[in-house]
Amino acid sequence: MKADKNTVSQLLKTARGQIDGILKMVEDDRYCIDIVQQVMAAEAMLRKVQTQVLSAHMKTCVKNAQTDAEKEEKIDELIQIMTRISK
Amino acid sequence: MKADKNTVSQLLKTARGQIDGILKMVEDDRYCIDIVQQVMAAEAMLRKVQTQVLSAHMKTCVKNAQTDAEKEEKIDELIQIMTRISK
Amino acid sequence: MKADKNTVSQLLKTARGQIDGILKMVEDDRYCIDIVQQVMAAEAMLRKVQTQVLSAHMKTCVKNAQTDAEKEEKIDELIQIMTRISK
Amino acid sequence: MKADKNTVSQLLKTARGQIDGILKMVEDDRYCIDIVQQVMAAEAMLRKVQTQVLSAHMKTCVKNAQTDAEKEEKIDELIQIMTRISK
Repeated sequence: MKADKNTVSQLLKTARGQIDGILKMVEDDRYCIDIVQQVMAAEAMLRKVQTQVLSAHMKTCVKNAQTDAEKEEKIDELIQIMTRISK
Repeated sequence: MKADKNTVSQLLKTARGQIDGILKMVEDDRYCIDIVQQVMAAEAMLRKVQTQVLSAHMKTCVKNAQTDAEKEEKIDELIQIMTRISK
Repeated sequence: MKADKNTVSQLLKTARGQIDGILKMVEDDRYCIDIVQQVMAAEAMLRKVQTQVLSAHMKTCVKNAQTDAEKEEKIDELIQIMTRISK
Repeated sequence: MKADKNTVSQLLKTARGQIDGILKMVEDDRYCIDIVQQVMAAEAMLRKVQTQVLSAHMKTCVKNAQTDAEKEEKIDELIQIMTRISK
């Protein structure tokens, strides 16, 4: 992976901490809407990870692809990811 | 919370397990696109949690609201959530 | 429909105007990224329509449902819509 | 634009036709949920346009970028678009 390891790991650990918090909220029978808002916050954190990893990927692997075959492979992967994201 | 506690906790623990897996992938310097795909899978798991909690909320709290003031409060909360989701 | 007809029609006509603009951009062979940005703007306009119509629906049809059967029907419809939106 | 003009124009015209249909539904005071479903169908059509245009853009403009400066410019544009899409 080409993104900064520390940054990405930190974001992932934050998301994991949020999920632990949500598990506790579920245990404590907290209000549904409060739980949903925390779930959305954790999703936003994962989307940040996704953006960071994809950006770094494009700035290195995609940019540095040399042969036509290599470029095509990288771009096909990106198109697949983008199509899934935009669903 | 009105959704089934066991189901919701299980989904959250699965998402947490996925995040642990992604942290290990980052540590092992795995390929960016593989990491992104796992992040998207964890997001999908959290969206499942969100849908389950919101559905149960509507089938109980929203459905059972009695006074007009209570109904309005529940519906305003839902509109806010829905507006954020559809962004 | 319970949302304000004029507001909703105006938003829809704006979206239609944006699509006409995009058709012209395609005809004129404009730059892909500029086209994509206009497409995203038109999607955002449609999401605004969606939010307006759903909000008004909840504030009237859902709020005023009387019998349990009627409430359940309205809530099931909402859950289906919400599940599709959050995909 | 690098995507097939006829295909893209056809999708855009379909979306415009859907919007005309929704305007008529609003005029005829049709049921909110039916309107929302049609709005979502039009959004899906625009997302198809977006995917087509972006895919063609990547397969040509991004792939054929020659200098490092050119590659960086194309990739920065893509990152911006991808970040907006994944919001």
